[in-house]
Amino acid sequence: MTRSTILDGNSFSTTDADHLPPEDHALIARRQRVLGPSYRLFYRRPVHLVRSAGTRVWDAEGREYLDAYNNVASIGHAHPAVVEAVHRQMGTLSTHSRYLQRGVLDYAEQLLATFPQDLDTVMFTNSGSESNDLALRIARHATGGTGVVVTAEAYHGTTSLVADVSPAMGKDYVLGSFTELAAAPDAYRQGSGHQLGAWFAAQITAAFHRLRARGIRPAAFLADTIFASDGVLSDPAVLAPALRATHQAGALFIADEVQPGFARTGSAFWGFARHDVVPDLVTLGKPMGNGIPVSAMVGRRDIVGHFGATVPYFNTFGGSSVPIAAAQAVLDVIQQENLPARSETLGELLRAGVRSLAERHPAIGDVRGAGLFLGVEIVSDRQARTPDSVHALELVNTLRDLGVLISVAGPHNNVLKIRPQLVYTEADIALLLERLDEALTLCAATATV
Amino acid sequence: MTRSTILDGNSFSTTDADHLPPEDHALIARRQRVLGPSYRLFYRRPVHLVRSAGTRVWDAEGREYLDAYNNVASIGHAHPAVVEAVHRQMGTLSTHSRYLQRGVLDYAEQLLATFPQDLDTVMFTNSGSESNDLALRIARHATGGTGVVVTAEAYHGTTSLVADVSPAMGKDYVLGSFTELAAAPDAYRQGSGHQLGAWFAAQITAAFHRLRARGIRPAAFLADTIFASDGVLSDPAVLAPALRATHQAGALFIADEVQPGFARTGSAFWGFARHDVVPDLVTLGKPMGNGIPVSAMVGRRDIVGHFGATVPYFNTFGGSSVPIAAAQAVLDVIQQENLPARSETLGELLRAGVRSLAERHPAIGDVRGAGLFLGVEIVSDRQARTPDSVHALELVNTLRDLGVLISVAGPHNNVLKIRPQLVYTEADIALLLERLDEALTLCAATATV
Repeated sequence: MTRSTILDGNSFSTTDADHLPPEDHALIARRQRVLGPSYRLFYRRPVHLVRSAGTRVWDAEGREYLDAYNNVASIGHAHPAVVEAVHRQMGTLSTHSRYLQRGVLDYAEQLLATFPQDLDTVMFTNSGSESNDLALRIARHATGGTGVVVTAEAYHGTTSLVADVSPAMGKDYVLGSFTELAAAPDAYRQGSGHQLGAWFAAQITAAFHRLRARGIRPAAFLADTIFASDGVLSDPAVLAPALRATHQAGALFIADEVQPGFARTGSAFWGFARHDVVPDLVTLGKPMGNGIPVSAMVGRRDIVGHFGATVPYFNTFGGSSVPIAAAQAVLDVIQQENLPARSETLGELLRAGVRSLAERHPAIGDVRGAGLFLGVEIVSDRQARTPDSVHALELVNTLRDLGVLISVAGPHNNVLKIRPQLVYTEADIALLLERLDEALTLCAATATV
Repeated sequence: MTRSTILDGNSFSTTDADHLPPEDHALIARRQRVLGPSYRLFYRRPVHLVRSAGTRVWDAEGREYLDAYNNVASIGHAHPAVVEAVHRQMGTLSTHSRYLQRGVLDYAEQLLATFPQDLDTVMFTNSGSESNDLALRIARHATGGTGVVVTAEAYHGTTSLVADVSPAMGKDYVLGSFTELAAAPDAYRQGSGHQLGAWFAAQITAAFHRLRARGIRPAAFLADTIFASDGVLSDPAVLAPALRATHQAGALFIADEVQPGFARTGSAFWGFARHDVVPDLVTLGKPMGNGIPVSAMVGRRDIVGHFGATVPYFNTFGGSSVPIAAAQAVLDVIQQENLPARSETLGELLRAGVRSLAERHPAIGDVRGAGLFLGVEIVSDRQARTPDSVHALELVNTLRDLGVLISVAGPHNNVLKIRPQLVYTEADIALLLERLDEALTLCAATATV
């Protein structure tokens, strides 16, 4: 059966099982027996993790890996400040928002202070999916419409509603009848800056027109502000024109910050801020609690308040004591250790390093990204910019064998998706570049054999 | 504006704000400013919680409350086994299911061993809402239908799809066009046992017929197996005939165990087991992680596997290291401390106690429930069985002032919803009964003035 390339691009297949240690073989058999086929593993040789600290993880055989992928542990694996905050809160109180608690208010105020003034209201959920689902419900409530525009390979999560606006689910997945796709702002192929912004806005406008033509009233343009599943598209000139086009169509703009947010994309802190826009609603997730499930939706009071006053919404775990304690510790670390600036500086260093590798490795077609979210496009022909997913997956698996964890993204699965922890040192960056150089050399040699 | 009675039955209203301590006043103002109107507080005088242990919670003024409501902390507040397990895991590794990990498999196997053999596959999520949303997606995928039957006051969560099958959202909420309601199996008014089962099955069949008549193919009957929001309906004779009616209609039966599961309803461990049925899909939630967000969906391999093989599904936090460590500790405590038997025995003791209070308090119309999930129906006229929500809410608020936390449920908001922690002692039960007696006496006196 055809499966989504985006969601399963770097997946283990049981046909590769012969090469595995017997213990991993047994674990995989147990997974298949109790978890079923939804559960996919990364890499041709899956990694059996047992321990982590900072920027490193270790497998069952004691092998160390430099983690350049997992952005849930964005402030570093097993960060002691979060471990201790959660321990303290769990031993004290764990309950929900139907009781008065000071912690959730302290956190909400500190979080909102990172947003433009108009984004003054926050609601807490348990996952990016729940946040996107809630944001779409609120946008529909506010506009009276149902139609949603997303980019061509967008991924927004797992609930029924957000899966139905996630073309990354694959060609066989039937999207919602209320969904229209717009081509993503690919500066590598469409040109950059002002011109790209105008072109992208035209795509959005056309998509809303197609909704109207089908009798569907627009509700929202929902976009990941780093366009991760579209291939890590980082030109910051595109969202301002897109937002104007969205408002002209009578819809709201929802910024999905689940991947780009919390300084992942640099000193702007939020991905939308790099584009110099103020969204109507913003969704947060993954790195917010360093592994404790916690997410949120931030928005303008006039929109969120109208929904809240008329539609009952209560989330048992959302805004409860322990997830909030984790989120508070994470936000404190990000701010106290000045990680947004670090993300910006180290990101520049990393991109410069990869660009200098590109001088010797013709497989690198484009190096892009923002902060510590890097996209490296692997091509078979630089002139024609031909995507080479076979080569990209070879690189990902070679790096895994060299002790560096990354993955792939993009419609052609040919963009190396590299997300170092925000607490990387310059030595970690140097090691990452060294191994990437080695992998590129090894894979080029294999390719010419 | 009209709001849902079910979801907001026991809500604080700002018109009551004058009676509050200044500090609580300030916290409420901060809540309104940053969280917005979705966030509702319990009680006329909201409780500001700061500490908890076992069966007790304490407010900011040091006042102790017996917790007879919060079922997330089902094995007791701040249970040291869970606190330590989470602490250990957070300091070691926190990552997702794309890597091999032993913990999620150990837990999955131990969890599945509590289910009938046919229910052999588990998928992990972050909330009961996500689990119900996923179960409905799977039922639709398996049947090719979209129609869902639920009971008249059912509540199944907060995602767009599950809110659309939750009539407890209130009269003003427009349910999904694919939703049909069936009257709930109210033994107090419809008769009990065999007769009730046949009557309820006829309601289900009729609801599926109405779907078909509207051109909508059936997908599922989704029911909370203790019918909590319908008023805690515990006659165990109803789900077997309902399941047969569901299968005859070509639909699947999804048991929502978010509230009744994990021994809350006694020694059967799962609510559906009390009814001696095997559902097609089962959803779990609230008490699963003692406050760490973790939920699951369990089902038959033929159904779940078909979905998993064709539809991509990946949940970042679902099945990740820390939520699973919490869930493992909770399940160990339930099994090692034999809490299912304790829930059964203490539940009988509690119901017998309330029944003996009923001899002196005519406001008690019916005492029902299973295990430590108790429903006490408050009526103004026993003969006519007239629901009295004013009296019920008076009792809830009086008990709060007497240091006992409970709430209300049911279509008329007149059913006391009492859910003691599974680790209650007999002395805790005696205290609960003593305070309930006192509250009934106080409220009766007020009513006659």
